[in-house]
Amino acid sequence: MTAEALPTTTRAAVLTGLNQPLEILELELPPLKPGQLLVEVAYSGVCHSQLNEARGRKGADPYIPHAMGHEGAGRVLAVGEGVTKVGVGDAVILTWIKGQGADVPSTVYGSALGPVNSGAIATFMERCITCENRVVPLPEGLPLREAALLGCAVPTGGGVVMNSGAVTGGKSVAVFGVGGIGSAAVAVAAALGAAPLIAVDVVPEKLETARRFGASHTIDARSEDVPARIREIAGGSGVDLAVEAAGVPKVMEQAFASVRTGGGLCVLAGNVTAGETIRLDPYDLIKGRRLVGTWGGETQPDRDLPLYARMAGEGKLDLTAMIGRVYGLDEINQALDDLESGRVLRPIIAFRS
Amino acid sequence: MTAEALPTTTRAAVLTGLNQPLEILELELPPLKPGQLLVEVAYSGVCHSQLNEARGRKGADPYIPHAMGHEGAGRVLAVGEGVTKVGVGDAVILTWIKGQGADVPSTVYGSALGPVNSGAIATFMERCITCENRVVPLPEGLPLREAALLGCAVPTGGGVVMNSGAVTGGKSVAVFGVGGIGSAAVAVAAALGAAPLIAVDVVPEKLETARRFGASHTIDARSEDVPARIREIAGGSGVDLAVEAAGVPKVMEQAFASVRTGGGLCVLAGNVTAGETIRLDPYDLIKGRRLVGTWGGETQPDRDLPLYARMAGEGKLDLTAMIGRVYGLDEINQALDDLESGRVLRPIIAFRS
Repeated sequence: MTAEALPTTTRAAVLTGLNQPLEILELELPPLKPGQLLVEVAYSGVCHSQLNEARGRKGADPYIPHAMGHEGAGRVLAVGEGVTKVGVGDAVILTWIKGQGADVPSTVYGSALGPVNSGAIATFMERCITCENRVVPLPEGLPLREAALLGCAVPTGGGVVMNSGAVTGGKSVAVFGVGGIGSAAVAVAAALGAAPLIAVDVVPEKLETARRFGASHTIDARSEDVPARIREIAGGSGVDLAVEAAGVPKVMEQAFASVRTGGGLCVLAGNVTAGETIRLDPYDLIKGRRLVGTWGGETQPDRDLPLYARMAGEGKLDLTAMIGRVYGLDEINQALDDLESGRVLRPIIAFRS
Repeated sequence: MTAEALPTTTRAAVLTGLNQPLEILELELPPLKPGQLLVEVAYSGVCHSQLNEARGRKGADPYIPHAMGHEGAGRVLAVGEGVTKVGVGDAVILTWIKGQGADVPSTVYGSALGPVNSGAIATFMERCITCENRVVPLPEGLPLREAALLGCAVPTGGGVVMNSGAVTGGKSVAVFGVGGIGSAAVAVAAALGAAPLIAVDVVPEKLETARRFGASHTIDARSEDVPARIREIAGGSGVDLAVEAAGVPKVMEQAFASVRTGGGLCVLAGNVTAGETIRLDPYDLIKGRRLVGTWGGETQPDRDLPLYARMAGEGKLDLTAMIGRVYGLDEINQALDDLESGRVLRPIIAFRS
C-alpha cells in the first residue's frame, strides 16, 4: 500500500431520498479496514434491484444517504490488511454475491452532506471500497465491460438455470420476463442444451432478443394463455424448469402453473415489490410442482464466474449482446429510467477516471 | 390357487352418493387378474382422505358406486398369476402407497346395484382384491391391528419427518394438526430425536395426546400467536421443519411462516378441500423458507414399513396409543363421524370374517 499516492475522493451516485433522482456527490474515501480493497471501477451494471430500492418498492431505506450499485468490474488500487485473493493492479469482477475471502459488511464515506452509507459493495462510483469476498479475479480474455455483467445479471439468471435448476441437455425450460436476468437465464440454458427453451414476455422486442440468445419458442403473454401454450410446446403437464424473472405476482403464479407435476421446478428470481403476495393451490405442491426462491441463483462466484467466462470465450454465451446501452455516471438517472421502461436490457455505466 | 374353496362374495362399505352414509353391500368377487391378490382383511384404518371424498370435499367422484378404504392388514387368501412377493397364508400390510411388484390399477366388483368400482386397493371390506405393489409382508412381531396403521397414517406422517424432512437428532420440528397423520409425525420425530418438538392444534385433548407421543411443547392455536410462539421456543427465525397435517389453508400459511429462513422446510401433508388456495409472500421463499407438498411422505413401503415396525418393537413408537376406538364394519359411518368431529384419533375397523 502506498497510501500517499492514492486518490482520496471519488464521485458517486447516491440515493438521498426515495423516489428522487440519484445525486452525484463527491465522497471522501475512508482508510481501508482489514479485508477491504479500493477498486477503480471501469464499468458498472444497473440492476432492477437498485431501481426498486430507489423507487421505494423495497420499503423504507434506513441507509439513506446510500451509495448504490452492486455489479461491476475494475482494477485494484489498494488492498487492506490480510487480503490475499488479489493484489494491487489486478483486474477484478465486482459482485454482491458472497464468495471466498474476508467479509466486511459496510463502509461509511464522508461527504459535504455528512456520512454516506454503503454496504459491502457499491459500484455507481469511480472508485469504491469493497471487501475480499465480493471480488473475483478477472478470467483471462474477458473484457472489463462484459465482465461487469458477471457481477449480477449473468450469475443470477445463469445460476437459476445451472445451479437451482440443474439444467442439462434436453431439459425443458421456460423463462418469464427476459430482461437482464431473464436473458442471461435464456442464454445459459441454451448453452447447456435446454430444449424446448421458451421465452415469455409482453414486449415483442425482448422476445426477439430472447430468440437471439437461443430461445426456441417465444410467447407474448398479452395475447396467449401462457401455461396452456407451454404445455402445448413442452407436452405433458409442463416444463421441467420455469424461471420467473419479471418480479410480478401474477407472472409468478403463471410460472408455477407452467411446470410439470411430479418434480417440475419453478424458481422465483425476479425482484418483487415488498408486501405483494401470490396465491397458490396447495394441490399443485402436493402433485409435485415445486416452488423455490433464490438470491443470486445459488451462485458460488469463485466457481461459477470463470465458467461463464469460458462459455463466452467459446462463443456459447453472447455477453456483448446483453449490453443495451452504455451511459456515463452523470446519466445514471436516465439509465434507471430506461431500465424501468424496458427500453434497455441491461444499462452499463462506463467510468473514465 | 384352489379357487373352488375360496369365498366368492364379501360385505363392503360403498360410497353410493356424495354426502350420503356409506352403504354396506354384498359384493361378488371377480376372478383375480395377473398381479392381483385376494386378502382377508383383519383390520382397516379410516383416513381423512376417505372422509373428504365421502363428504364431497374432493369434488365429484366419477367412480361411484365406489368401494373405499386404503390402509389395513390381513392375510392372503389367493394370489393371481405372476405374484411372487407374498404367498397364500402370508400376513400382509395393505397400503395405498405404491411399493415393489405388479401394479393393477382397478377392480370392478359385482353387486345387486350393478358394478361397484375400486381402485388398486379398498379395505372397508371383509375380503378385498388388491395388487402386489400394495402389500408388504407383515414384519415379525407386529400385531395385525397395529399393522393397519402402517398402511397410511404412520408412513405419511412418519415419512414427512423421516424422508421429506430428513429429521435427525436435535432438529427442531413443529407439527400442525395432531390427528392421525400429525400424531404419527410427532411420534416418529420423537423417535428420531427431534428437539424441540412442538405440537399445534385447537383441541386440548389432541395436544395432551401429542405430549404422550413425545412433543416437548404444545401450542393451542386458538389462544396464541403461533409463528411468534414457535420462534420463541425454537429461537432464531423458526423451526427446521414444519409439518402441516390439518389440511387448512390458514394453518398452511402459519406453518410456512414458522420455518426458519435460509433452509427451513414446510411440508404440506394434510388433506385440503379442492379449490382452496393459500397466500404467500414470495420474499419468504427468496429468503430460503421452503414449501413442498407430499403424497405419502415419499414413502417406499418395502423399505420404510419394516423400520416403523422396528421402532415399535423397540418401544420408541407407540402404535397402540394411536388407535382411538375399534368399530365393526356396520359402524363405519359412526367411525367417519367420529373422525370428522375429532373425537377419535384414528378409527380402526375390525373384521371377523
